Parts: sequence; C-alpha cells; structure tokens
Amino acid sequence: ASGNQWTLGAVGCAEYEGVRLRDVLADAGVKESAVYAAYESEDLHLSRDPEKDAISRGVPIEKALDPDTLLVWAMNGEPLPAIHGFPLRLICPGWPGSTSGKWLKRIWIRDQVHDGTKMTGSAYRVPRYPVAAGTEVPDEDMEIIEEMPVKSLITRPGSGVEVKQGRSLSLRGHAWSGAGDVVGMHLSHDFGATWVEADLRPPKNKFAWQRWEATLTLSTKGYYEVWARATDHTGRMQPMLVPGWNPKGYLNNAMHRIAVKVSS
Amino acid sequence: ASGNQWTLGAVGCAEYEGVRLRDVLADAGVKESAVYAAYESEDLHLSRDPEKDAISRGVPIEKALDPDTLLVWAMNGEPLPAIHGFPLRLICPGWPGSTSGKWLKRIWIRDQVHDGTKMTGSAYRVPRYPVAAGTEVPDEDMEIIEEMPVKSLITRPGSGVEVKQGRSLSLRGHAWSGAGDVVGMHLSHDFGATWVEADLRPPKNKFAWQRWEATLTLSTKGYYEVWARATDHTGRMQPMLVPGWNPKGYLNNAMHRIAVKVSS
Repeated sequence: ASGNQWTLGAVGCAEYEGVRLRDVLADAGVKESAVYAAYESEDLHLSRDPEKDAISRGVPIEKALDPDTLLVWAMNGEPLPAIHGFPLRLICPGWPGSTSGKWLKRIWIRDQVHDGTKMTGSAYRVPRYPVAAGTEVPDEDMEIIEEMPVKSLITRPGSGVEVKQGRSLSLRGHAWSGAGDVVGMHLSHDFGATWVEADLRPPKNKFAWQRWEATLTLSTKGYYEVWARATDHTGRMQPMLVPGWNPKGYLNNAMHRIAVKVSS
Repeated sequence: ASGNQWTLGAVGCAEYEGVRLRDVLADAGVKESAVYAAYESEDLHLSRDPEKDAISRGVPIEKALDPDTLLVWAMNGEPLPAIHGFPLRLICPGWPGSTSGKWLKRIWIRDQVHDGTKMTGSAYRVPRYPVAAGTEVPDEDMEIIEEMPVKSLITRPGSGVEVKQGRSLSLRGHAWSGAGDVVGMHLSHDFGATWVEADLRPPKNKFAWQRWEATLTLSTKGYYEVWARATDHTGRMQPMLVPGWNPKGYLNNAMHRIAVKVSS
C-alpha cells in the first residue's frame, strides 16, 4: 500500500498530563444525540497545500467518554513538544495513533459517524469480514479500526547480534494490547517448535505497555531467529505471519523476530 | 531444491505383516562391531541406467534392533503390491521413508555408518546446526535425518470449500510425530490469534498416525484459512511457517492450512 511504510509498526508510552476529555465534554454539555467526537487541528494536509483539508478523525462518543481518553498538554513532565502536538492533543489509548489528534483547535461532537478527511473510504478501515488477498472490497463493507491487536517487540538486542555458544543472551522488550493486559509472553529460538516463558511485568497503569525480559542460552553454534509472542487476557495471541489481508495493510501484528548468530 | 517436489509431504499408515528385523538379525548373528544396518534392493537408479547404483540407505543398528522395525511381506492383508516393495521391504517407522527400503535383496550389517548411494553429501541430510538461508554448508557439517518432526494434515474438506454462514463445518485429518505421541491438536480460523482444540484419538499402536476431528461454525461471511497445529508429547509443535532452512528443503513441518469461503 502507499503511505508510510510502518515495517514493525510504531508505539509509544509516555507520561501525560491533562484532563479527561469526558470532564471537558460534561462541562460543555453533550446532547443525547451525540454519536462521534471529532477533532480538527492546526495541521496541514500532507502536501502542505493550505487549500486541501488536513486529517480530521475522531472516536465514537463512548470512547470519548472513557476515563482513559485524555486532552493533554504535557508529556514526561514537559510541555508537549511541537512534534507531539503543542499546545494540546488527544490521547485515545489502545486505538490507532491517528485518533490521538495533535495541535487541536476544536472538538466537534457529531450526531453521526464523523466523515472528516481520513475517516472514509479505505483510510484506517479494514473489511468487516475476512477477505482473500487482493479482493476489491466495496466502501460500504469497510469498517473503522478501533481497538489495536496484541503485539510485542524485542527492543534489545538488535537483529544480527552475535554471541559465543554457551553464553547467555539477555533479551528485553515491550508488549501491549488494545484489548487490555498482556498475560503471556513467550520466545522461541527454533522457529516455533518450542516456546519459553519470558518474565513479564504488569503495566504501570491501564494501557501502558508492559516490559518483559528473558535470558536464552544457545549451546550450539549457528544461525537462530528469536521470535517473540504476546498473548492478551482475551486469549488472543500474535501469529507468526501477517494475519488477514486488507487493502491498506493495517493491523499487522505478526511476531517480531531477530537474527542471532552463535559462534563457536 | 531439485528432486521430487513434496509440497505438503507424504505419509502413509497401513497394516503390515512381517517379522521384527531384530529377530532375523539375531538368527543370523550380529557382531559387537555392528554400527549400521544397510539395505540393497532390486531397484534401479532413477535414470534406469543399470550401470548406475540404486539407492542404498539404512539405519543405525539401534534403530534396526528396535522392536518396531520390521521386515514385511504383506500390507493391509494382501501380499505387498509391486509398487510397495514386493516381495519384501523394510518398515522403519517415524524415520524418512527412504530408510524403509523396498524390493530387498540384502541387509548388510556395517561396522561404520553406511556410505551407499543417497547416504552421503546432502542426501537426506541437514546441517548439524541451524544456518541462515542460502548458507553453503561443508559436507562434514551435515548430519543424517533420523526421527521425523511432528506434523498433521487436514484431509477433509479440501482447500477452497464453500459453506453457508452459521452452518457447521466438519474437519478431519491425521497427526503424527517421529518422536512419539501427538498430545494436542488445535485449529485456528483467524491466522493464529485464537486456537480451538480438536478431538484427537489415540494411535492404534505406536507409530500409527492419529485421527482428529473438529467442527467449526463461522458466523460471518468471508474468506478464512483454517490452520491445523499438532503438538507432540515432547512439547514440540508445528510452526506456522517453514522452519530452519536447509540446502535440500527437508523437514518442512509448517502447519497445513485450507481456504474456506463462507457465503451469506
């Protein structure tokens, strides 16, 4: 698909300071007819052409009223950096980053599903039902991505690390799920034949990522791949390969793997 | 790799009648120096050129003396069909089919690892240690394949089956492992996010394959893939992808999958 090539994906976990969006909405007054909370921003269209509409997305009113959905002005104890949305941005944890609008100038409570730029067509949407690779899916059969799937990363060491046989290899990383807590973190060094459990820490708070650590000792020289697999509290786990095809290539939560060379 | 393109592999499970190879060897007398039991046959070289040596493989003396290693003359209650090795063949269960020599004319007890045709070089051998794809592996670093890995097949329905949404889909197949019993059989219809347990029957006897059955009900129309995963008593399971590369492409026990189209 065209657009940013996200490769392994992108994820962040910072400390934010702000207010609950629901408190601001309560203060402003939300009608019974509210369906969607949309954002508008000082952003420009990607082309920087001021005649073109910038991205304007949002979330259903239920997500907007969730106590973990925030309007924030500080990140890690400092005012929001410009690139992170100064002076004010949304944080809609567990959902696609594009719902956490930056450089906010307006929250627009809609009585319909928001139809701003990048809300319609195939943008941030996947088919309502699984389709074979390459299928042409009519617009009315596409649905908006909400909760993100369970995923994890190996952050240390990098792919291609070399280690002497018999020496222990320390690994660490993060795991998260839009659905809630990650409850199992496993590693394989034999392409999925056997799995060992990593030491998985609880999240600092709801929607924070979880750190994990593990130590492997590979006693035979050779080329290995270490695969990392997270399982969340709903029982869903990461697949070894790219799951269900969709036209724009979203929601790839295939396991992350690194190459490890063990020398004699 | 050149040679037969085995695609999903090949496996058989028949009822054989014969004698234990170890009883024949005991009658003939086996010296302390025995290392390998090799076979020679009435077979021709693949080219049918009588000047060229036919395949002549074998097994270590320990496998030859295993009570499940047989010399057989009947299959499913009938004399061995010609294509299955009439009048006499070896059955070395759980090992590569090429060790179960057909059309036998001689068993040769060797005081060294047998060096017949298709015993050396890269034939029926894999690297002693995992290697990156495309690695040139020296002959001395290749080892003979013995026990075959855990594997399973979906035998019904065939790939591409169509079913109405909400209707149950019955599946069945076989699972086996050169290491011993299969203890878990699981299916996924969502590319490995969730797994359901199949009903797995015990083997008829040691090294027989095991039958499994399962029923899935898919309530949303669309394109699905049903993946089948066996786990043996050692805890080893099939990977979703082709495991460790080797020069000749042996030992691919990646999960079998079928396409299922659910119509509204």
